[in-house]
Amino acid sequence: MAKILITSGPTRQYLDPVRYLTNASSGRMGAALAQAALDLGHQVVVVSGPVGVTYPAAAEVIDVLTTQEMLEVAHREFQQCDGAIGAAAPCDYQPQQVETEKISKTGKPLQLNLVETPDVVATLGERKRSDQWVVGFALETQDRHFRAIVKLEKKHCDLMVSNGPEAIDSAENQVDLIDAEGQLLEQISGSKLDVARGILKVIDARLIR
Amino acid sequence: MAKILITSGPTRQYLDPVRYLTNASSGRMGAALAQAALDLGHQVVVVSGPVGVTYPAAAEVIDVLTTQEMLEVAHREFQQCDGAIGAAAPCDYQPQQVETEKISKTGKPLQLNLVETPDVVATLGERKRSDQWVVGFALETQDRHFRAIVKLEKKHCDLMVSNGPEAIDSAENQVDLIDAEGQLLEQISGSKLDVARGILKVIDARLIR
Repeated sequence: MAKILITSGPTRQYLDPVRYLTNASSGRMGAALAQAALDLGHQVVVVSGPVGVTYPAAAEVIDVLTTQEMLEVAHREFQQCDGAIGAAAPCDYQPQQVETEKISKTGKPLQLNLVETPDVVATLGERKRSDQWVVGFALETQDRHFRAIVKLEKKHCDLMVSNGPEAIDSAENQVDLIDAEGQLLEQISGSKLDVARGILKVIDARLIR
Repeated sequence: MAKILITSGPTRQYLDPVRYLTNASSGRMGAALAQAALDLGHQVVVVSGPVGVTYPAAAEVIDVLTTQEMLEVAHREFQQCDGAIGAAAPCDYQPQQVETEKISKTGKPLQLNLVETPDVVATLGERKRSDQWVVGFALETQDRHFRAIVKLEKKHCDLMVSNGPEAIDSAENQVDLIDAEGQLLEQISGSKLDVARGILKVIDARLIR
C-alpha cells in the first residue's frame, strides 16, 4: 500500500487584510480522492486550502492559506510519500504589493499588478525521486486536450486529469485521463466519488503496482 | 414585531470562469443576527453570498453570488421590510473586463483594472422610506471611529456597527455601536451571538419601538 499526498481546495492571495483573490474550488474532488484512496487501503495526507467540505477522518489533514504555504507544506510532506495528486486549485496570481491596511475606496478605478505564484504540482513534478509519481489536474475552458498535454509535460506529471469548468462546486465530474505520453487513457464521468475511484484504479494499476 | 432584512457573507467578482476577487467573510455574524432577531419574535429575510454557515431554519434565505445581485435582491426585499442590517461584506471592486475563457498564464505580470461595485447599504440608506431604518457595519483596520462615522453619514444609516479585522472568520466579535449623530452608544464584546443580541436590543429600543 502507498502513502499518497493530495492537495485540495483553493488558496487565497490577499490584497489587504480583507480582500483576496482566489479560485472557485470546493475541495469536494480532493475529499472524494482521499476517500477512494483510503478505501483501497492507502495512507492519505491532505494539504488543503480553506474549504467547507469535511475530509475523511482517517486522512491526515494539514490546513494552509496561501499558494506559497501549500507549496512548502506539500513539498515537505511529499518526501515521505510515494506519490502526489494535485487536486487543489491554488490561486496562481498574487498582488505584487500587499497592503497592511484596508485599501480605502476613492470612487476611482484601482489598478492591481499581479504576478504568478509558484506552481505547486510543477514543483513536485520537477523534484520527484525516480520512485515517486505525480498526478496533475488541468481545468481548462478551451482546447482542453491540447492544454492538458502541455501542462503534463511542463509539470513532469505521470498522469493528467483534464476537466472543465462544469466541475467547479458541482457534485458531479467528467474527466479525461491522459498518460505521460499524452495518450487518452480513459474518460470517466459520474459523482465525484465515482470519478475518484476511477482515477485511483488507474493510479493503482499503472503507478503503484 | 418587525420584518428585518439581513445581508450576510461575501460576494464574488469573477475575472474569468475560475478566478475571482472576494472579501473574507464567513456569514457567522449574519447568522447570529438572524438568530437574535428571530428570538425577539421578528421575521427575518437573509440575502447571503456563498458561505459555509447554516442560517436558522426559521429565516427566509435568498442566495446571491455577485454584489450587483445582492443589491438587486436586497433592494427588492427591502420594500416589504421595516428595516435592514447590512452585515454582508460585498466585494467592493470588480474587474473592468470579465474574460469568458480562463486567462492563460504567460509567465509575465498581469495588470488588472478594477472599478468599484455599487454600495448595497448606501443604496438601501438612500432609498429608505421615512418609516424604514438601516443599520450598517463598518470594518476598518485604522481610524475606526472616524471612518465609521463617515460611512454612517455617507450611507444614511440610523446606526453603525464598527468592528475590526479580528472579527473575520472568528467566533467572537467586539463592536462599537454609533448612533445617527455619530455618538458612541455602546461597546459590546463576546461571542457573535452575544454581540448580535446586544445589537438587536439597541435596534429594538431605538428603531423598532
